[in-house]
Amino acid sequence: MKKLTAALLGSTGAVGQRYISMLERHPFIKLDVLMGGRSAGGNYGQSARWLQADAIPEEFAAKKVLASVPESARGCDVVFSALPAAAAAAIEPKFAMSGFSVISEASAHRMDQDVPLVVPEINPEQLGIIEVQKRRRKWKGSLVTTPNCTATGLVMVMKPLLDRFGLARAIVTSMQAVSGAGFPGVPSLLITENVIPYIKDEEEKVVAESRKILEHPVEGGMRHPGIEIAISCNRVPVIDGHTETLYGEFPGAVEPDEVADSLSAFRGLPQKLRLPSAPEQPIIIRDEPDRPQPRLDRLSGSVPGMSVVVGRVRRGIGDNSVQLTLVSHNTIRGAAGTAILTAELMQNQGYLGRPG
Amino acid sequence: MKKLTAALLGSTGAVGQRYISMLERHPFIKLDVLMGGRSAGGNYGQSARWLQADAIPEEFAAKKVLASVPESARGCDVVFSALPAAAAAAIEPKFAMSGFSVISEASAHRMDQDVPLVVPEINPEQLGIIEVQKRRRKWKGSLVTTPNCTATGLVMVMKPLLDRFGLARAIVTSMQAVSGAGFPGVPSLLITENVIPYIKDEEEKVVAESRKILEHPVEGGMRHPGIEIAISCNRVPVIDGHTETLYGEFPGAVEPDEVADSLSAFRGLPQKLRLPSAPEQPIIIRDEPDRPQPRLDRLSGSVPGMSVVVGRVRRGIGDNSVQLTLVSHNTIRGAAGTAILTAELMQNQGYLGRPG
Amino acid sequence: MKKLTAALLGSTGAVGQRYISMLERHPFIKLDVLMGGRSAGGNYGQSARWLQADAIPEEFAAKKVLASVPESARGCDVVFSALPAAAAAAIEPKFAMSGFSVISEASAHRMDQDVPLVVPEINPEQLGIIEVQKRRRKWKGSLVTTPNCTATGLVMVMKPLLDRFGLARAIVTSMQAVSGAGFPGVPSLLITENVIPYIKDEEEKVVAESRKILEHPVEGGMRHPGIEIAISCNRVPVIDGHTETLYGEFPGAVEPDEVADSLSAFRGLPQKLRLPSAPEQPIIIRDEPDRPQPRLDRLSGSVPGMSVVVGRVRRGIGDNSVQLTLVSHNTIRGAAGTAILTAELMQNQGYLGRPG
Amino acid sequence: MKKLTAALLGSTGAVGQRYISMLERHPFIKLDVLMGGRSAGGNYGQSARWLQADAIPEEFAAKKVLASVPESARGCDVVFSALPAAAAAAIEPKFAMSGFSVISEASAHRMDQDVPLVVPEINPEQLGIIEVQKRRRKWKGSLVTTPNCTATGLVMVMKPLLDRFGLARAIVTSMQAVSGAGFPGVPSLLITENVIPYIKDEEEKVVAESRKILEHPVEGGMRHPGIEIAISCNRVPVIDGHTETLYGEFPGAVEPDEVADSLSAFRGLPQKLRLPSAPEQPIIIRDEPDRPQPRLDRLSGSVPGMSVVVGRVRRGIGDNSVQLTLVSHNTIRGAAGTAILTAELMQNQGYLGRPG
Repeated sequence: MKKLTAALLGSTGAVGQRYISMLERHPFIKLDVLMGGRSAGGNYGQSARWLQADAIPEEFAAKKVLASVPESARGCDVVFSALPAAAAAAIEPKFAMSGFSVISEASAHRMDQDVPLVVPEINPEQLGIIEVQKRRRKWKGSLVTTPNCTATGLVMVMKPLLDRFGLARAIVTSMQAVSGAGFPGVPSLLITENVIPYIKDEEEKVVAESRKILEHPVEGGMRHPGIEIAISCNRVPVIDGHTETLYGEFPGAVEPDEVADSLSAFRGLPQKLRLPSAPEQPIIIRDEPDRPQPRLDRLSGSVPGMSVVVGRVRRGIGDNSVQLTLVSHNTIRGAAGTAILTAELMQNQGYLGRPG
Repeated sequence: MKKLTAALLGSTGAVGQRYISMLERHPFIKLDVLMGGRSAGGNYGQSARWLQADAIPEEFAAKKVLASVPESARGCDVVFSALPAAAAAAIEPKFAMSGFSVISEASAHRMDQDVPLVVPEINPEQLGIIEVQKRRRKWKGSLVTTPNCTATGLVMVMKPLLDRFGLARAIVTSMQAVSGAGFPGVPSLLITENVIPYIKDEEEKVVAESRKILEHPVEGGMRHPGIEIAISCNRVPVIDGHTETLYGEFPGAVEPDEVADSLSAFRGLPQKLRLPSAPEQPIIIRDEPDRPQPRLDRLSGSVPGMSVVVGRVRRGIGDNSVQLTLVSHNTIRGAAGTAILTAELMQNQGYLGRPG
Repeated sequence: MKKLTAALLGSTGAVGQRYISMLERHPFIKLDVLMGGRSAGGNYGQSARWLQADAIPEEFAAKKVLASVPESARGCDVVFSALPAAAAAAIEPKFAMSGFSVISEASAHRMDQDVPLVVPEINPEQLGIIEVQKRRRKWKGSLVTTPNCTATGLVMVMKPLLDRFGLARAIVTSMQAVSGAGFPGVPSLLITENVIPYIKDEEEKVVAESRKILEHPVEGGMRHPGIEIAISCNRVPVIDGHTETLYGEFPGAVEPDEVADSLSAFRGLPQKLRLPSAPEQPIIIRDEPDRPQPRLDRLSGSVPGMSVVVGRVRRGIGDNSVQLTLVSHNTIRGAAGTAILTAELMQNQGYLGRPG
Repeated sequence: MKKLTAALLGSTGAVGQRYISMLERHPFIKLDVLMGGRSAGGNYGQSARWLQADAIPEEFAAKKVLASVPESARGCDVVFSALPAAAAAAIEPKFAMSGFSVISEASAHRMDQDVPLVVPEINPEQLGIIEVQKRRRKWKGSLVTTPNCTATGLVMVMKPLLDRFGLARAIVTSMQAVSGAGFPGVPSLLITENVIPYIKDEEEKVVAESRKILEHPVEGGMRHPGIEIAISCNRVPVIDGHTETLYGEFPGAVEPDEVADSLSAFRGLPQKLRLPSAPEQPIIIRDEPDRPQPRLDRLSGSVPGMSVVVGRVRRGIGDNSVQLTLVSHNTIRGAAGTAILTAELMQNQGYLGRPG
């Protein structure tokens, strides 16, 4: 595979650090440029408040953090963005305009009609919007986004249920890890021995983004499958790994066993293409009554943290409904990992190319 | 009010201790007899692994723990039972047979058709079954039960919604405190920095018991209102206070504001009777977006721990549904407190009387 | 007792809130003026991110937050300061200069030679420095400080050991609650399922402040008793309550039982004067092998949170040493409570008086 | 290296599981026989309450759990024991008598005069006692023990300080993880948002075992170096990784920098022999002010969990003392890992041999 040179916006934050850990030994993506805001100018090792257990890889510790301007990324094939929303809104378009392929975690542009919102296993075809985007915005480059961490795990489970059984309605409750709030994020004074039943704007994002991702291509555009979603988002004292209960309603009777089987059998385009960050099994089914659990299951699978783990698949109120619980790693599958997988897919599909 | 003398089965366990704390200064119930299993024979202060922050009240510390036989309770007007299910199944009927009025936390007999399952604010009329029970079982005394801790908070919120708006379906996810599992209960090795998405038999209990409690009297018996319930029960690293998200569906359109108002306005018979353990407001509505939280709200209200705190009352998917979050103290409202309130109500309604 | 009217600097922060809770029902101190920084101008209920379980007392919720200038406190007999250090350094002297009696939690002036650093039970005589202070600084008012939360519990235990047994050396390890870091304070991402073995500047403060507090008056000034202290400060995932292990060395042999007895028997001037915030027993000894514990013991005593709880009093390496563990509530005894008790003592001793 | 066939006593418990994880891919130790108590007879996968995040290795899941009798281990070169103390006292001697080389985690025989208590880096020479043991006990096999988890990390740090600077006294406070108590171990109801300042018998074990390990060979036996140790053991809400603060006193002046350097430079016999479970660096020094932390540092080093991580090396009260903080993984370095490393060392030194 051709080598890809990458730059990273928002490199010193919690998600930025996850990119660095994940890209350290990537077979063909070389993270070459680290960019920052106030931290620009210093060495990465001094600028980042490193939160991972592993030490900062030496090659990155010594790297200079550059300013968040397109010039910094010269020569790069892809620009990852782990910027907060407000900064993303201002900065990402400048890179796309300058000819860079930007892949962003930020919520700023996710819901723009001409911006793909992609989970590679679920809706790779949405990358096709890039052409419309470039034309309309007169950009030499492009902007692709990946969804909110809670939406990511959810759509990965909903998609096979939608395709196979016509999932019509999802009532969801999330129990989300504190790392989802970034750093410094949730004060320990608030979350220790507690549940916080609210995360600002999260429920709206999960519903809107999940619906956009599950849209399917029709002549002349995309069409929404009519699926209805309600969610209650909660914060719990867990470091990594979002847990979600899903109550799903279907147009007809479904058997929990069939649901489990079709989740377990699900494979997406990244699996077919054997992309390096694609887990062999996107969804792992656990049969034990008390799984999945975030602390035990968040790093499951052949690419740790990239599989969604599902358990407790059982009947709902009648034959037309099923309940289940899922765990998804929020900063791997729900952030850096999906973005990296998106880069791998875009490379494979010919969407990446250097400006200039 | 006439003084009531009480005995306590299962006095040394976690729930038993809560009775002792709550009855220490009760205006008319005097806890006189403490009973235990293997702990019988010693002083309470030595036998109980005391888990409360307050010290053991001195009068109880020095009390001898008696054997769990009807003779021990001689002279008592009411026998509270905080026994585990298996012991309750064997021991409680002996007390009822001997003429005692037994009020039990245990699940053993909750679903027996001739055993009232009571939350005093919600279904005081179910005490009427006692007559049938005594006749059928040829008991001189009686057995009344109170529900599972998760069911208790849930039915308190469902009842006003059922009466006023005809609540038809409830999709619930619970995030339950570790104290609900008793002592030693949940190993810290399992629950620290984790969510356990399963509690043995809990979901079945919540559904069945909630339905039994919400039945209404019709000619010749009780009739179920047809309400449908599904629940996912989870354990979270919280000491006290169960949090539940409720997605409710109604036959017609409901306004979240009306829902909040009718919950806030709800009063039951214990409030009308001004029973000492009845909180002025059974349901407290919090308007802040991030409430209720178990650590902050579990001891709310005029009788700490006896009010259910509700927040985030908002629309569900369409006009016919509403979502909300509730917190209920699992060992007060969900256990000892509701049992004590039941004793107060039974005393008021003339159901209590000494054997002999 | 004559009524005291009080003003509060730093009213919206975590410690400020503790003052409001503690003064709500004080027998003779009336908290009349709330001051803030950026929050000045709004209502307290809107400006404060209220962190206590009890609701904001209504009278305070509606109060306007005033600017942090002496004019705001006009008519007040005492000004409490819960300001952060930098703000305290700038603001507190202005109030003292204007004639106010300022009692401060802040570290800014604690080590100034002419500023009393007081724990009322331990060194009430240090209030005598006020005269020197007023003369030297030409202040109409005065500034009195209370120590760091970890030092407070420690000196309360060291003082009786110093007086009775001549404690010569203390090797201490603290396990401190997150509330000690204020709000937002310690990120949950750092402290969940973890110990952080460092708190910036804390060890230096504890050593220096403890030594200053334990000084005794000699002709012409104060003299240090020569006690040596070393401490390792750690943060642990506890909400409230600092735990400290103390290894104490003495010039001669001591019996652990005598140590326990003399701690238990210790009474200070506030106890003799029956000041309202003085707990009957400043130090409570627990005999159980596994006490004190922060969650169970932090609110012990006749004035909840004002007693230090000590346990595990046992021999050290030889006859000349003793080991013990103590728990002290860091935002009550270690902050607001000691400041309020200081105000009570100053009032009693004639140190308070309105400017003008 | 010659292959070793191993058997495991206490295979289904928490420490037993750690052996299985660590030996799954060992270069020359093949774990062939799993033994259990009540679990004997079933398949391992069904009998063990598996607590590790990784799934049970398939080969072990299907293995039958055998009875804990010497016949079960026939053909094995070494028998690891993860038994609780009481079972160990009864069972281990039977294996040693039958000719097996037993390496035990259990406390039962650690302090027996003719039983080596070994940390391979620290006192490999203590294996020499085996000859005395065999003669005195008339055993065909032998029994070697490894120390308590808290003692292990401590002696690894004390030994270089003893050898180089003559460490004379250690005042220690531990903050221990819940996994050290096994399964089910510490109830979450006790440890959540809390510190428990006591672990039964732990302090006595740490002191006695550390002293035995640090003994040095003299003519005709071993001699104690005269080092004095006092420790306060605490349980904190951490899953894995014991943190310890150490205040060390020396006969003369020492520089913290020299202390750090000599810890960092320390290598033992296992490093020289390049044993597979020997970390390149037994002690890792971290320079950041807020390290080591159990969650971030417990899996450090070239063999994850086998290095002790030390930080905050600084002066104590005077020139003759130093303070530092260490983190050591309690179930790897403090249990299974040290036992496996001991087996590697014994194999290398010719101590292992099949009963024949």
